[in-house]
Amino acid sequence: MHKVTETTHSMDKIVSLCKRRGFIFQSSEIYGGLASAWDYGPLGVELKQNVKAAWWRSMVHNRDDMVGLDSGILMHPQIWKASGHTENFHDVLVDCKKCKNRFREDHIENNKCPNCGASDFTDGRAFNLMFKTHFGAVADEASEAYLRPETAQGIFVNFQNVIDATSRKLPFGIAQIGKAFRNEVTTGNFTFRMREFEQMEIEYFIKPDDADECHKQWIDQRLQWYLDLGIKKENLKIREHGKEELAHYAKGCSDIEYNFPFGWSELEGIANRADYDLKQHSQFSGKDLKYQDKVTNERYFPYVIEPSGGVDRATLAFLIDAYHEEEVEGKTRVILKFSKQLAPIKVAVLPLLKSNNDIVTLSKKIKQDLQQSFTCMYNDTAAIGKLYRRQDEVGTFFCVTVDVQSLEDKQVTVRDRDTMAQERIPLDNLKKYLIDKLSN
Amino acid sequence: MHKVTETTHSMDKIVSLCKRRGFIFQSSEIYGGLASAWDYGPLGVELKQNVKAAWWRSMVHNRDDMVGLDSGILMHPQIWKASGHTENFHDVLVDCKKCKNRFREDHIENNKCPNCGASDFTDGRAFNLMFKTHFGAVADEASEAYLRPETAQGIFVNFQNVIDATSRKLPFGIAQIGKAFRNEVTTGNFTFRMREFEQMEIEYFIKPDDADECHKQWIDQRLQWYLDLGIKKENLKIREHGKEELAHYAKGCSDIEYNFPFGWSELEGIANRADYDLKQHSQFSGKDLKYQDKVTNERYFPYVIEPSGGVDRATLAFLIDAYHEEEVEGKTRVILKFSKQLAPIKVAVLPLLKSNNDIVTLSKKIKQDLQQSFTCMYNDTAAIGKLYRRQDEVGTFFCVTVDVQSLEDKQVTVRDRDTMAQERIPLDNLKKYLIDKLSN
Repeated sequence: MHKVTETTHSMDKIVSLCKRRGFIFQSSEIYGGLASAWDYGPLGVELKQNVKAAWWRSMVHNRDDMVGLDSGILMHPQIWKASGHTENFHDVLVDCKKCKNRFREDHIENNKCPNCGASDFTDGRAFNLMFKTHFGAVADEASEAYLRPETAQGIFVNFQNVIDATSRKLPFGIAQIGKAFRNEVTTGNFTFRMREFEQMEIEYFIKPDDADECHKQWIDQRLQWYLDLGIKKENLKIREHGKEELAHYAKGCSDIEYNFPFGWSELEGIANRADYDLKQHSQFSGKDLKYQDKVTNERYFPYVIEPSGGVDRATLAFLIDAYHEEEVEGKTRVILKFSKQLAPIKVAVLPLLKSNNDIVTLSKKIKQDLQQSFTCMYNDTAAIGKLYRRQDEVGTFFCVTVDVQSLEDKQVTVRDRDTMAQERIPLDNLKKYLIDKLSN
Repeated sequence: MHKVTETTHSMDKIVSLCKRRGFIFQSSEIYGGLASAWDYGPLGVELKQNVKAAWWRSMVHNRDDMVGLDSGILMHPQIWKASGHTENFHDVLVDCKKCKNRFREDHIENNKCPNCGASDFTDGRAFNLMFKTHFGAVADEASEAYLRPETAQGIFVNFQNVIDATSRKLPFGIAQIGKAFRNEVTTGNFTFRMREFEQMEIEYFIKPDDADECHKQWIDQRLQWYLDLGIKKENLKIREHGKEELAHYAKGCSDIEYNFPFGWSELEGIANRADYDLKQHSQFSGKDLKYQDKVTNERYFPYVIEPSGGVDRATLAFLIDAYHEEEVEGKTRVILKFSKQLAPIKVAVLPLLKSNNDIVTLSKKIKQDLQQSFTCMYNDTAAIGKLYRRQDEVGTFFCVTVDVQSLEDKQVTVRDRDTMAQERIPLDNLKKYLIDKLSN
């Protein structure tokens, strides 16, 4: 019926589509933009919310061994001393003495400035990647504070609170979604590496003996999550970290990588952090954060498996993976083939004639009814062929078209995004038809 | 059947319940806490998510005239010059020369230090309430940046992007939920006034002539939202700002106030901001942000109605309003009477005997099945009477109890939170029974 041309698509096409259709805008664009910062537009915010909701549903609600948490971006500065971020979370930077530009020392090849070619640099200087600010106005309270560089530490410092409030026994996990900030020197690749970004992190607490097996299971489970939401298998791979890449306390780490147009890159890291964090916070806070087994009366620091994913990276991967071009009647049809869970709009209701008041009224009434069950939009800003293409381009699952005949036979045309097949459905049955289609 | 004793409850009771049951923890507690900062625990994060989802559903998805947005916390610093925050968003502070404590000048009564009673102060000094940081590491890029003190400006600077991407016509609104930060001198009252907090804001763009009528409508609609989610009518009121309270550009503002234990206080402000923001950003960015009416070809700056609510304040009000104490058989029963939409857990599945493997297995199976439709928990950590009380205390709508008889007759006991009435329901019908009860 229509020929599928699986062309390789560039990031440019994705970036352009994102701006044009309201997925992602450049931050502060009217002021010339802010480097490596991006805003989510009307469709982007829906897509990102769907990604987060899918993660929360499968990682928290649909499991028996998980609870959620939402800790602050600003926390006590001592936390970052305990975690090691104050001392170790930095890049070494050098300035070119000739052109005065600043670079990461490990990015200077052959001792030549990448900007002007000179080879005279200042000594390397450690540049901490945490954003610093000051908390409190009253003198004795005022203190340096940091925007958290990861959400994980908010979980560790609440470990005892969660146990006290929920009576949880090992193994169990705490999940959190929230913003994190890193003043990266090297940014870029659209929303892949931003200074302000969103994480979805789990700290899963277990007996030390169970750590290796549990680590393997989490790698499998997290990979499966991306597959279940529609990412093509061939675009995902697991990469185990070499010894030299591991943090000194980590027993192992594997990344889930996605085949981005700019190369295979990390979507999520799944690390065995051993008992490093709880031990550090016990030492720095003076509070004993050991777990007490109420049956055996043993007290010990649990090991921790940490699946740590990026919301923005996942959203970008879902966007890229969903992008398809097809040739239909000599023209290119662009489709975002989002899964049912992720599509920002499930159903668009389109009047065939916007000059016909009865059709418009009926269309709006249908939208009002359907929106109780799923995200819908009404659109009458173009002719039907164009409206279909526009909905395909943003991944809308079904288009419902209301025409003159609908006023008489109380039926509407339902068009499928992927097959473009059209079916005539009685209005009485429309909602149930769509619910069935969208829920299986 | 049971006597309702509507005792006046103090904030202490709420704060204590919140910590004990995992709604809200003090931030960084193991390090001695961080002033006026709080973390949401396992139940708190669910409650807050439900508040945000309810707002998004009724303000975005269930309307035809709204779209969403999610802009960054860090934006171009010029934005805060245009909005007036750099120059005007400050408190005037003085230091006591004797005890060195710092105070808001307008909080010093009779020129006596509230701390030591001395009456010798430094001159007043403007203290900007925006948290400042530095963005970027490379020299020519490094610049002062601020944590946004409101989400609203992220909407205004994306006004043109949204119009271009969505072809929206007036009237329409843009909604956003996200963190904002204010380095308040005076904080307190639990989560009511925090330095890091979450806003849910709408900027609704209209023809200038329609502003007054539209403002009234939004006040009614926003009040209704709190009522629909279960806040008692007598605990809400509208307070219109006096002329002297209004920002110089505002044409009017009304607050929705809630009767907190510490007094009537603002939940949400609904302001008529006129055309101030779009005009300012046009001037400061050099980009013309006028709206073009495609029918009449008029170009003008729309007026803006801004319903601006606090997520944390709303969550706190819902918690307080839900809190009830009843006397049952000589004992006090604490119940959080959350509405169906807001209850963090809809159904708890409880085995009557946790020593009976068949009962435990069946209970967990029931939970697994029900959790596909709503948030559930399994709990076997106490005797049934205690488990019921614990579920009442966190507002769980229904308890499903599995007993020995359930293994034979395939029926379970469903207990209603508010009436404590118990009904025997066949397992085959359980899910449908609960869906019906929870969806009307």
